[in-house]
Amino acid sequence: MAYTGKLKKIISRNKSILVIGLDTDLNKIPNIFLKYKNPVSEFNKAVIECTKDVAAGYKLNLAFYEYLEEQGISAMRDTVKSIPEDMIKICDSKRGDIENTAEMYAKTYFDKYNFDSITVSPYMGRDALVPFLKRNDKCVYVLALTSNKSNSDLQLLKSGGKFLYESVIEFSLSMSADNNVGFVFGANHTEEILKFTSLNPEVPLLIPGIGAQKNDIGMLMKSIKSETAVINSSRAVIYSAPKDCSEKEFFEKIRESAVEFNKEIDSCKNSV
Amino acid sequence: MAYTGKLKKIISRNKSILVIGLDTDLNKIPNIFLKYKNPVSEFNKAVIECTKDVAAGYKLNLAFYEYLEEQGISAMRDTVKSIPEDMIKICDSKRGDIENTAEMYAKTYFDKYNFDSITVSPYMGRDALVPFLKRNDKCVYVLALTSNKSNSDLQLLKSGGKFLYESVIEFSLSMSADNNVGFVFGANHTEEILKFTSLNPEVPLLIPGIGAQKNDIGMLMKSIKSETAVINSSRAVIYSAPKDCSEKEFFEKIRESAVEFNKEIDSCKNSV
Repeated sequence: MAYTGKLKKIISRNKSILVIGLDTDLNKIPNIFLKYKNPVSEFNKAVIECTKDVAAGYKLNLAFYEYLEEQGISAMRDTVKSIPEDMIKICDSKRGDIENTAEMYAKTYFDKYNFDSITVSPYMGRDALVPFLKRNDKCVYVLALTSNKSNSDLQLLKSGGKFLYESVIEFSLSMSADNNVGFVFGANHTEEILKFTSLNPEVPLLIPGIGAQKNDIGMLMKSIKSETAVINSSRAVIYSAPKDCSEKEFFEKIRESAVEFNKEIDSCKNSV
Repeated sequence: MAYTGKLKKIISRNKSILVIGLDTDLNKIPNIFLKYKNPVSEFNKAVIECTKDVAAGYKLNLAFYEYLEEQGISAMRDTVKSIPEDMIKICDSKRGDIENTAEMYAKTYFDKYNFDSITVSPYMGRDALVPFLKRNDKCVYVLALTSNKSNSDLQLLKSGGKFLYESVIEFSLSMSADNNVGFVFGANHTEEILKFTSLNPEVPLLIPGIGAQKNDIGMLMKSIKSETAVINSSRAVIYSAPKDCSEKEFFEKIRESAVEFNKEIDSCKNSV
C-alpha cells in the first residue's frame, strides 16, 4: 500500500494526527523503568502500549539512540517492532549524502529496521533522495522550512524570485511518485503551511514544534488544508508522568496527554 | 591543542595529506578477515596498522557502521581506539539538526567515541553548528560544494550575487574560533578550491572525490593554497588487495597504495 494510503487509514481509524516523538532520554524516564536491562526499550514499549489506539504513529529521533551505542540500537529495533503494523513509523535521521551512501541508509532504516518513512536533508540535491524513493511503500520527508531560529541563514534566502525552501520543494516534488515525497514544516510557519497545503492537499507533511507552545495549535489547524499532515509532539507526551510515578499513573498520564492533544486538535477543527 | 595544530603536525610528521576513508563493506573485505568475530573491526585495525606512518588520518562514513547494527557500533568504537592519538579521526556523518539534537550528536561522536572532527550539513543554519563548536580541540567540516551531480539543485543557486555555498561559508566562518570550522569541497571543484584557499589558507578543508578519477590530482594540487587541506581516498586504498590475498600481501598492497598516493601528491607539488 502507498504511504499516504496507510497514513489516511490510521488517521481515520484512531481519529488522530498525532505522531509521538520517542526522543527518549535515559535520565528523564520514570524510575519504574530503570530496573530493566534496557530501560529505554521498556519505556518506549509502555508508551506505545498506552497510546496505540489514540495516535497515528511514532517518530524516533536517532540522535537519542546513537547516544546509547549498542543499547540504543537494540532499543530502536525493539521499539519499531512493538509499533502495530498499521501505524506510521518515522525515522527522524535528517540524513543527506551521495547516492551510494544514501542507499546504505535506505537499506538500514527501511529494509532492516522497517521504518515507513525517513527525514532527509536536501543540501546535496536530488541524488540524496533517489535511493529512498525506490521502495514503493515508503516515504521521504524532506526538510523544507524548519522551526529553528537560524532557518533564515539558508532556507529563506531568495533565488530567482523564490525562497530556497521553495526550490527544495520544487525539485523534490519533481521526483515524487504516488505522493512518496513529503516535507517537514515547523509548526510556527502557519502562512507557508496554508499556502503549501492548499496547493498540495495530498502531499504528506510532518509538523514538529508543538508542545510547549500550545498556543499555536489553533492557528496551525486553520492552516492545514490536507488530510495527510501529521503533528509531532515529543516531550509534552512522553514526559507527562512524574519521575516517581507508579505503572498505573504512568499509563494514565501518558494516555491522557495524547487524548487531550487529540481533543484540542478536534476543537480547533470544529471552530474552523 | 587546536585542531589545525594537530593537523599540521601529523601532515608534517607523516609527510602526507591523505585521509583514508574507512567505508568498510563486509562483502568487499578480503577473506582472511572473515574468521574473526567482528571482521570489519579487524580489517580496519589492519588497514590502520599498515598505514599509520604514511597517512594524516582516517575518516569513518557512519552509514557503513549503522548498517551493521550492534556489530557496526562495536567496530566503530574499536576502530577509533586503534587510531594513534596524534592522527586525525573524522566522523563522516553529515548530521544537521536543531540545537538540542546536535548537542546529542556532539556528546556521542566527540565525547564518547573521541572523534576529532565531524561533517555537518548546513541546511538548518547556524543552530546546527553551535554544539559542535563548544569543544576547543574539535572541528566541524561543513558541507560547502559537494562533488555529486545534483549539487547544482541548491549549492549553485545564486542569491544576492553569491552562490548558496558561499553564503554557507560566510555564516559558518562567522562562528569560527581558532579555525575550528572547516569545509568539504569535492575534488572536481578546483577553481573554487583555488579561490577559497587563496583567501583562507588556514581553514581546514576536507576534499573527497579522488580515487578512481586519478587524473584530477595534478589539477587539484595546483589549486590547494593551504597547509590544512586533506584529501580523502576510500575504495582505492582499502580495497587495493585482492579478495583472496594473504596477510602479507594485504599489508603490502594497502601500504603501497597509500605510499603511491603520497608520491603522486608530491610529484604534483614539485611540478607546481
